[in-house]
Amino acid sequence: MSGNTFGKLFTVTTFGESHGPALGAIVDGCPPGLELSEADLQQDLDRRRPGSSRHTTQRQEPDQVRILSGVFEGRTTGATIGLLIENTDQRSKDYSKIKDQFRPAHADYTYHHKYGLRDYRGGGRSSARETAMRVAAGAIAKKYLAALGVQIRGYMSQLGPLAIEFKQWQSVEENAFFCPDPDRVPELEAYMDQLRRDQDSVGAEITVIAEGVPVGLGEPVFDRLDADLAHGLMSINAVKGVEIGAGFASVSQRGTEHRDEMTPDGFLSNHAGGVLGGISSGQPVVARLALKPTSSITTPGRSIDIHGQPVEVVTKGRHDPCVGIRATPIAEAMMALTLMDHWLRHRAQNADVRVDTPRLR
Amino acid sequence: MSGNTFGKLFTVTTFGESHGPALGAIVDGCPPGLELSEADLQQDLDRRRPGSSRHTTQRQEPDQVRILSGVFEGRTTGATIGLLIENTDQRSKDYSKIKDQFRPAHADYTYHHKYGLRDYRGGGRSSARETAMRVAAGAIAKKYLAALGVQIRGYMSQLGPLAIEFKQWQSVEENAFFCPDPDRVPELEAYMDQLRRDQDSVGAEITVIAEGVPVGLGEPVFDRLDADLAHGLMSINAVKGVEIGAGFASVSQRGTEHRDEMTPDGFLSNHAGGVLGGISSGQPVVARLALKPTSSITTPGRSIDIHGQPVEVVTKGRHDPCVGIRATPIAEAMMALTLMDHWLRHRAQNADVRVDTPRLR
Amino acid sequence: MSGNTFGKLFTVTTFGESHGPALGAIVDGCPPGLELSEADLQQDLDRRRPGSSRHTTQRQEPDQVRILSGVFEGRTTGATIGLLIENTDQRSKDYSKIKDQFRPAHADYTYHHKYGLRDYRGGGRSSARETAMRVAAGAIAKKYLAALGVQIRGYMSQLGPLAIEFKQWQSVEENAFFCPDPDRVPELEAYMDQLRRDQDSVGAEITVIAEGVPVGLGEPVFDRLDADLAHGLMSINAVKGVEIGAGFASVSQRGTEHRDEMTPDGFLSNHAGGVLGGISSGQPVVARLALKPTSSITTPGRSIDIHGQPVEVVTKGRHDPCVGIRATPIAEAMMALTLMDHWLRHRAQNADVRVDTPRLR
Amino acid sequence: MSGNTFGKLFTVTTFGESHGPALGAIVDGCPPGLELSEADLQQDLDRRRPGSSRHTTQRQEPDQVRILSGVFEGRTTGATIGLLIENTDQRSKDYSKIKDQFRPAHADYTYHHKYGLRDYRGGGRSSARETAMRVAAGAIAKKYLAALGVQIRGYMSQLGPLAIEFKQWQSVEENAFFCPDPDRVPELEAYMDQLRRDQDSVGAEITVIAEGVPVGLGEPVFDRLDADLAHGLMSINAVKGVEIGAGFASVSQRGTEHRDEMTPDGFLSNHAGGVLGGISSGQPVVARLALKPTSSITTPGRSIDIHGQPVEVVTKGRHDPCVGIRATPIAEAMMALTLMDHWLRHRAQNADVRVDTPRLR
Repeated sequence: MSGNTFGKLFTVTTFGESHGPALGAIVDGCPPGLELSEADLQQDLDRRRPGSSRHTTQRQEPDQVRILSGVFEGRTTGATIGLLIENTDQRSKDYSKIKDQFRPAHADYTYHHKYGLRDYRGGGRSSARETAMRVAAGAIAKKYLAALGVQIRGYMSQLGPLAIEFKQWQSVEENAFFCPDPDRVPELEAYMDQLRRDQDSVGAEITVIAEGVPVGLGEPVFDRLDADLAHGLMSINAVKGVEIGAGFASVSQRGTEHRDEMTPDGFLSNHAGGVLGGISSGQPVVARLALKPTSSITTPGRSIDIHGQPVEVVTKGRHDPCVGIRATPIAEAMMALTLMDHWLRHRAQNADVRVDTPRLR
Repeated sequence: MSGNTFGKLFTVTTFGESHGPALGAIVDGCPPGLELSEADLQQDLDRRRPGSSRHTTQRQEPDQVRILSGVFEGRTTGATIGLLIENTDQRSKDYSKIKDQFRPAHADYTYHHKYGLRDYRGGGRSSARETAMRVAAGAIAKKYLAALGVQIRGYMSQLGPLAIEFKQWQSVEENAFFCPDPDRVPELEAYMDQLRRDQDSVGAEITVIAEGVPVGLGEPVFDRLDADLAHGLMSINAVKGVEIGAGFASVSQRGTEHRDEMTPDGFLSNHAGGVLGGISSGQPVVARLALKPTSSITTPGRSIDIHGQPVEVVTKGRHDPCVGIRATPIAEAMMALTLMDHWLRHRAQNADVRVDTPRLR
Repeated sequence: MSGNTFGKLFTVTTFGESHGPALGAIVDGCPPGLELSEADLQQDLDRRRPGSSRHTTQRQEPDQVRILSGVFEGRTTGATIGLLIENTDQRSKDYSKIKDQFRPAHADYTYHHKYGLRDYRGGGRSSARETAMRVAAGAIAKKYLAALGVQIRGYMSQLGPLAIEFKQWQSVEENAFFCPDPDRVPELEAYMDQLRRDQDSVGAEITVIAEGVPVGLGEPVFDRLDADLAHGLMSINAVKGVEIGAGFASVSQRGTEHRDEMTPDGFLSNHAGGVLGGISSGQPVVARLALKPTSSITTPGRSIDIHGQPVEVVTKGRHDPCVGIRATPIAEAMMALTLMDHWLRHRAQNADVRVDTPRLR
Repeated sequence: MSGNTFGKLFTVTTFGESHGPALGAIVDGCPPGLELSEADLQQDLDRRRPGSSRHTTQRQEPDQVRILSGVFEGRTTGATIGLLIENTDQRSKDYSKIKDQFRPAHADYTYHHKYGLRDYRGGGRSSARETAMRVAAGAIAKKYLAALGVQIRGYMSQLGPLAIEFKQWQSVEENAFFCPDPDRVPELEAYMDQLRRDQDSVGAEITVIAEGVPVGLGEPVFDRLDADLAHGLMSINAVKGVEIGAGFASVSQRGTEHRDEMTPDGFLSNHAGGVLGGISSGQPVVARLALKPTSSITTPGRSIDIHGQPVEVVTKGRHDPCVGIRATPIAEAMMALTLMDHWLRHRAQNADVRVDTPRLR
């Protein structure tokens, strides 16, 4: 494969460019019999949708998804599910300048050298617009997993220098930042307003948690659950780091502190982040991802053109000053796709297994 | 696949348990014509080998690798390369106690529930002994890449609470810690000696760098170079976090700071860690990984047995008090395997591409 | 994967049902820089298109394909190519009878038991309508290969009891049967007219040949070129047998007869069908496939319904009395996809190889 | 992958050359809990073993297999199973002549051009000796499937010009030919004796049948059961054709004849060979494969050397005059591996499916 497919048994293959006619995906391996409608997908698409607050890009895309196959009389048939979203607000503009320049910290330079040519309109395939199809496909996985008692939710745990402590899930859906503490929202808004005035951008950290995951998901030794999760999360545009459980904090922990002791009533802590030996333990699976500041800013930067000559680059157009703000549904989608794939992989090999030992939480 | 293969074109499939008769691997996809001998593999195996200092496990394993196929008259033929290491120091002992207990923070509990039975001798398949075959296979990739000018090296950048600044590569090979600063070695030794007296263990951070990587490696959108690297590094036993370039520090960076500006003389910084849009940029590829403290410690811990009853666990046997100490060659191996796979994937699709634009460093 | 993807490096993933809104495909791994337009795909789609003679189904489908991504300014970019064909002539009709019956020799019975439910409208996913996307994707591979000097062509070599000797390529495109002998066409037409009067159907044999294939394509030991070709061709609806070169005739051949001797001027025969040791030899790659008679006939047949009760089935609707008639472009497409995939796989591993020995034809 | 792995969930990856130190395989995805010992594998290895009659190669290989991992206390653990067979009778001889010549109809010419160098000792990787590991791995699949009621058996259905009608299974194991009719054995022996006197070789046809296969195995549309079976069978050395059910005979059948009608008591025929729409129907899965005459004969043949000069080739050494004679266990192994893989794939996606409709045989 050349990289546009995620998963081994529950697979998502995507296509589409920022300014092309449409985005699409094919989901293969979905179990038959799942009740599914476009509304199930639309909900998460709307959470990721651009243009819904002043803190994200002003490009207006309804992101209306169509299911073109694989669903019959309201239920999945086991056949591939074709998904399509038409682009509607890809503005025509003059690209004569940008087409020969490499914007710093964008994929322009690497795409140019890898492929010899590139669709420079809005970043083409490298645009985060591609993630819309991840969210659509992830919503299918989410729905299947929900029936098994698995709930996947994320929130923003840091915006630039502002760390955000988790307070409540309800708040997350009630503000533009997926902020779990309603009292911090005004501060975030003020920060973002100042950032726009500064013509700058900033990074963010997202935390995503899956609760209700049964013990047993993950395939040693290379396709551990945490390894595949790291793959999925790191494949999101702008992500520069992934942690599971205690993550980098475990570097300075001692074994007596880090190890999650067990009693008949359950685990006493969750530094492991719900994964032991690459396999889910039944505890919540906890991952954090670091997103870099977007590079599309109007403060001029030094760069070169395709002839190797120095140029000064200013990125105009409609961009997110903090791509992390819309990243929560994408992180949830990648968590859902990873767990779904491993659910199917697990039962392929281990459907015969019967264990009497009680399971912990 | 059930998870014991890494890579898509240059693949490594491994087998073997800690206390079984042997470990083995099959490497598929190696280009023909590469000069290769067992000595090429032995060098890195010796760097990872247990028992070479008082700070690692005292299990004595020569880790002598045999090449059983795929090499003819000193050169690879393009056929699969079979590798074998026999275990020699898997001590017989009484496992009657451990077989019914779940050691905290080990894979015991999850393997038991996933598979219904487990090879409890020394952790079986979940033992870090498995990583010997990664190092052997990685050495093949390293040798191929070296001929292309790619050099892959790692070092310990933190031991427990002790952060270590990079000073020089020469030092790395001259101490048991892969420490890049010779002046810090006595401090590390003292720390480890105290740790053993405390009957405890500790985490570590490893930094691994690939220099000389050409622009163009990595496949958008899911199999980005950084995503596959995260997969590979997170699949190493005990790893809980992976960063590329600025990593989690990029969360609080601004776009004007993070973006690596370009001039005709090259990039002005490398916050991206050598990857833009999932594709190598020609700058050094920089990754960091967090390893948790090993859970095999003699300080008693609370746990349960397979009947759900509470037990107190003390892990005897020969163990590494800091698994991070021997992790540097493993991290290098996973970096090498990832780059090698992407080298082949890149030329599969893009061998026709010709670009006149000058390349930067 | 759950089976809707073909290829490992040049991959085609398809979706769509006979009576759904659309058929689609995603092609991944296409090298960048290939000139490509919808017209390139339409040509082969028109050759496969239903309703173009009285000997095939009367369903009218223009099969107009749209390229939704992966092509920019007339050339492929290396990104996934999204393809879409909307269904236009899926007639509404009363399915109340067919939905509870299993038509003999159709996929009804097996889909029902495998998935628990099925899209019974026109066969759903099991309809040969699915092959339209193979032809569209195959046309991309054909175009790429053509630039390398590889020409892929097929013809009907048997219609029911009527064996057809190859005479000339020109004739193949000038009749509804892909018959390579213009003098036999009236006989075929008379045979088909009688068959329709008999309310019956019949099988066919297609021969497909790739000329100009370089020596070296195919990966031992499981992914031999002939093995992957057998996979591809046998995956076409209604195919029951595949031969390479002498095929089943080689059973009664002696070694002195079968072996294709070589002289400096070339091979003296081609019983191998262009594949030696699973690798293309530079001779034409020759494959034959056997297609069964379609089971959709109006002569009543015995079957059961979903309650296990006996029923008499008559398949009405619009069907091909000989699915082999339209199979030639599909066979060419699968040959093209297989060769294309192996072209990329070959150069991934062997791009470094330099050989002085002259190559034969 | 570069072609040395078979299967997607139950995978077999092999290594080893004819005259190297050993052959090996790694089996991944085996469900845990299966009772397994080396004796289970040895039985089929002995059936394939060379040197057991005067009609096969006189190379003496005990083919003693060792299980190096994945089995603990007599049962599979779910971890990879490492298999190893050491070569013992790879005679040293003077290869100075053969190393520069291309034997007609061998892989010499294609390996040379593909890889630039080749292990010319006994054919290296292209030797049918490689199939020993298929048989070893296939025995694991066979054992798992047997517990589910699936029985896989094959027989020789044609030797050169001598077609053999099936009489009884008992006979198959009682002669060197896997001949199902004891009365025909003397005729086969006489034919082979004459063939050796003629210094020639001949082809053969093998029929392999799986009984007890449940309805539902196979993944539309590309990974149909019959397509994957064709892949597996065509990947066996010397195979030039594969048929399912009526195979090429279906070309001249009419729909009224070919379609297998159903009654509440079962199917009335099995022209489909147990596969409908790419999915097993519950009827016996029937496949036939055509094997070409071996090219290693002592009758001189024309060829060229690596300088393009004409040479006369005589293949000395120890060879099978009819490779088909030992092919039955190999065909059974590939059938077993294919069914096993699809068993796991089926339950990955469809484990939830519940169907009330009665199942037929």
